[in-house]
Amino acid sequence: MSGMNRHLAVVLLSGGLDSCVTAALAARDHELALLHASYGQRTAARERRAFEEMAEYYGVASSRQRLVDLRFLGALGHSALTDLSIEVPEGAPGDGVPVTYVPFRNAHLLCAAVSWAELLDASSIWIGAVEEDSSGYPDCRESFLAAFERTVQLGTATAKPPRINAPLIHMRKADIVRCGHEIGAPLHLSWSCYQASDHPCGRCESCWLRAEGFREAGLEDPQR
Amino acid sequence: MSGMNRHLAVVLLSGGLDSCVTAALAARDHELALLHASYGQRTAARERRAFEEMAEYYGVASSRQRLVDLRFLGALGHSALTDLSIEVPEGAPGDGVPVTYVPFRNAHLLCAAVSWAELLDASSIWIGAVEEDSSGYPDCRESFLAAFERTVQLGTATAKPPRINAPLIHMRKADIVRCGHEIGAPLHLSWSCYQASDHPCGRCESCWLRAEGFREAGLEDPQR
Repeated sequence: MSGMNRHLAVVLLSGGLDSCVTAALAARDHELALLHASYGQRTAARERRAFEEMAEYYGVASSRQRLVDLRFLGALGHSALTDLSIEVPEGAPGDGVPVTYVPFRNAHLLCAAVSWAELLDASSIWIGAVEEDSSGYPDCRESFLAAFERTVQLGTATAKPPRINAPLIHMRKADIVRCGHEIGAPLHLSWSCYQASDHPCGRCESCWLRAEGFREAGLEDPQR
Repeated sequence: MSGMNRHLAVVLLSGGLDSCVTAALAARDHELALLHASYGQRTAARERRAFEEMAEYYGVASSRQRLVDLRFLGALGHSALTDLSIEVPEGAPGDGVPVTYVPFRNAHLLCAAVSWAELLDASSIWIGAVEEDSSGYPDCRESFLAAFERTVQLGTATAKPPRINAPLIHMRKADIVRCGHEIGAPLHLSWSCYQASDHPCGRCESCWLRAEGFREAGLEDPQR
């Protein structure tokens, strides 16, 4: 784990399945700097626990961990993830942009990663965005990430702006589960449920996608 | 001030001279929604007062005012605006990126504006970024703003993503002073100083640029 010949990667780690596998992919040939954001989501405390357990799992020093408070996003309302008056949808995702959408959320997360990466002189930023087989958020598309990377190249003061890696972008959920299983990602520490914090509800969209992924991959979810 | 034939504009209003003039330009044919961010800067309380006085000046309802807490940016350190161990430079700006630079700050501010604009269905976002005659921040360039706007088009869920307006982008400080004076911007309410909160220090880069602007424009600064 000597840092001499390893590049430093800033990984956006929500604590969910996708970011867990993304961190595991980054960890194969990078030192990790882990960034976790809370934005007033229902399950903020449980997600933070998953983040902390993964940071411990990878032996990441506290100076390489950052918590970012984006609660002002939640205060804007508008999403079932942060507005308790809107019900979290259950079952398979529908068409279009779902009520769990937080406007432009990934841009906020990426901005935090960019500012930190510039400070750390990190070479790359990793995000577990998934374009297909996901909930249909516009800020999870590869075209969005490419445009954002261009913005980073133009808006930062470093000679070598960090690149953005989204290794899961074209994977389906079952591929992500399989990939995580193969590379030994700590899937047992990840948390996906959108509405419960003790035991996953098993009914929300995110639980549904996770269960389908494990089922299709023919693997048992170590979370249970 | 009927809202029927006026478009809604989200204006990033720090309370400084540039954002003051930007808000005045937006107010000519838009309803205003005013967004103010604090990010741990030395003069946060004074800037917030300037914001509140301008909001009152324009009669903006409290539901059209938002305060955004970006203190996590300050907690990253790295800038003389937020790190009290770094001295604020005095006199004319030097070459290159100054120590008052907060990495990728305008991207964070714009993201907040985009999320709110999407919620409000606002047609435009206004930012007082200045490319020339400014402190040389990379995220104040027109090319950066154009790339960011492309990111907004790709990353939001609205049919009509908000446009980004930076009407001062190619103005020099004296032009901004003249423009603000001509259109009746409340320049007397604006606050520019980077290091004092009672009476402007008159020595920091920002005070220096402001004084030069008024001098060149041949106008007296109503702040004094």
